[in-house]
Amino acid sequence: MDPSKVDIPLLKDLTIDNITENVHLINSGCPDPRLKYILERLVTHAHDFARETRLSTDEWMTGIKFLTEVGQICSDVRQEFILLSDIIGLSLLVDSIDHPKPRASTEGTVLGPFHTHDAESEANGSTISHDPDGEPCLVLCSVKDTAGKPLDAVKVDVWETDSKGFYDVQYATREGPDGRAVLQSDADGVFWFKAIVPVPYPIPHDGPVGKLLRVLKRHPYRPSHMHFMFDKPGYDHLITALYLRNDPYETSDAVFGVKESLLVDLGRVDADQARRYGVSEGAKLLTYDFVLVSDEEAKRLRESEAMKAMEALGRRMKLYNGLPVPDVD
Amino acid sequence: MDPSKVDIPLLKDLTIDNITENVHLINSGCPDPRLKYILERLVTHAHDFARETRLSTDEWMTGIKFLTEVGQICSDVRQEFILLSDIIGLSLLVDSIDHPKPRASTEGTVLGPFHTHDAESEANGSTISHDPDGEPCLVLCSVKDTAGKPLDAVKVDVWETDSKGFYDVQYATREGPDGRAVLQSDADGVFWFKAIVPVPYPIPHDGPVGKLLRVLKRHPYRPSHMHFMFDKPGYDHLITALYLRNDPYETSDAVFGVKESLLVDLGRVDADQARRYGVSEGAKLLTYDFVLVSDEEAKRLRESEAMKAMEALGRRMKLYNGLPVPDVD
Repeated sequence: MDPSKVDIPLLKDLTIDNITENVHLINSGCPDPRLKYILERLVTHAHDFARETRLSTDEWMTGIKFLTEVGQICSDVRQEFILLSDIIGLSLLVDSIDHPKPRASTEGTVLGPFHTHDAESEANGSTISHDPDGEPCLVLCSVKDTAGKPLDAVKVDVWETDSKGFYDVQYATREGPDGRAVLQSDADGVFWFKAIVPVPYPIPHDGPVGKLLRVLKRHPYRPSHMHFMFDKPGYDHLITALYLRNDPYETSDAVFGVKESLLVDLGRVDADQARRYGVSEGAKLLTYDFVLVSDEEAKRLRESEAMKAMEALGRRMKLYNGLPVPDVD
Repeated sequence: MDPSKVDIPLLKDLTIDNITENVHLINSGCPDPRLKYILERLVTHAHDFARETRLSTDEWMTGIKFLTEVGQICSDVRQEFILLSDIIGLSLLVDSIDHPKPRASTEGTVLGPFHTHDAESEANGSTISHDPDGEPCLVLCSVKDTAGKPLDAVKVDVWETDSKGFYDVQYATREGPDGRAVLQSDADGVFWFKAIVPVPYPIPHDGPVGKLLRVLKRHPYRPSHMHFMFDKPGYDHLITALYLRNDPYETSDAVFGVKESLLVDLGRVDADQARRYGVSEGAKLLTYDFVLVSDEEAKRLRESEAMKAMEALGRRMKLYNGLPVPDVD
């Protein structure tokens, strides 16, 4: 690189008090206004964090080592940074910001680190969990729009643990997906599959995030739940989960995911359903009516809430690809 | 874990507006007041960052992937998280906070990711760089206290790149340390060694941090410098570096390390010095008088500046092992 091409402000003698504005200055050459704004806020918060805590070099090095360990335990089937984001409530917050829900629609919740992209596409009625120790549970749900119209051909990704509380990917011996599938809603907006009753389980706590939870005296448990993810062109992507009411961890989820509207009571399969879906009468039954928001409505809501929030912060902003950036002209 | 032992606040239905206080609540069981305060600030800043940017799920995932890559490129000899901290000015800030300097003392600067713990202990006068292409440079320095008293037996860690701008650890073929040594000041507080004239070099930019610099349109160069680290019981640990004046990157250091007081002009070895130190007359000469601060003075200054900063922030704090924590009683 030709040093004569260095076209940036003069930076020297940076101190506790002037470093932040100077880092902004050198980053201000970023041509993408959104990335520039994100970096500006990130640097400000990182610096304010250090200034407000008077962070010591030892503490900083502890942080560097912790983040390095978090990165190094990640693999194709383990995402410890998502786990870290989950246990500090950041994941739930980002989902809430990005997927605002009008009153009548299904609320979202944390994705968690266990969704995979290799689940088999299955027909309605298929068995997604092959754990012989799991308690059978028929899942019989519908998916509609906010006007109550059934939505067909919605891609429904579902995943849950086995009866021991482990996802398939947590087994070193995993040969392929289990406890997960990709289904499609039928012409009536209905989808159904044979699963097992979810159980509470600890998030992976043998790594750095588990160590952090221990020093914070927090438990790593999540209440019993089943994950659902919905995709249909024209509708806002919905990541959610259903939680069993009265689970011992219902009000202390390690990743803050439980919402009242997502709590369910399991029912029992009646004679008619048993015949119709080929399961035993009296078996556990999970039913829920999901409601998707149109892309358009979600966008309108996301943008109006973003601008409202920016106004409340006293920032003069405009939207750029639907996301706020400073309004400088 | 026995769920009946779950002794934490009820958490459910968390939203953009109430998640932060609830994460604080669940973290408040942490028995270490300092860690509790650090976490409280960290969570607040992470959440405010997401709220102020209206961070999208895609952007969050980009961040998760970026941090994972940063962790995964780290190795025994590469520390990409330190590099990341360096290029956002956090490293310089933390050093400034942790090692406040009274007027008469030597300023600190960034450690950088290339210090190692395997440098050989060498006698004064030894040759620390064996690069035949480097321009020889005699380094002849002293180390004193703030009253001007020479300090003997100070452990002095020095490190620099070779003539191509690479540290020994950047070579896959590295067999042992080169361009680095651990020296000791003599009875007169003097230490000297044979090095090479430092050259400007890019920080490692083949990884995620380099990619970030590129999208920000920042160059990865550091001006020519030599690192010094001082240790002596009773004196505040000093991490610093000397920079060659008029380097093309003097005012645009990628990691914000340059300070006016650390700029040096290289001299020339005179006949007397040539004889005395066994180098050629006319060779390049780097001299500097370092001044260490006593532990006691550094502690006093660090604590008073911490309390002053807390007061300016309007926080009611007390010191705990010399670092601020909320004063709750």
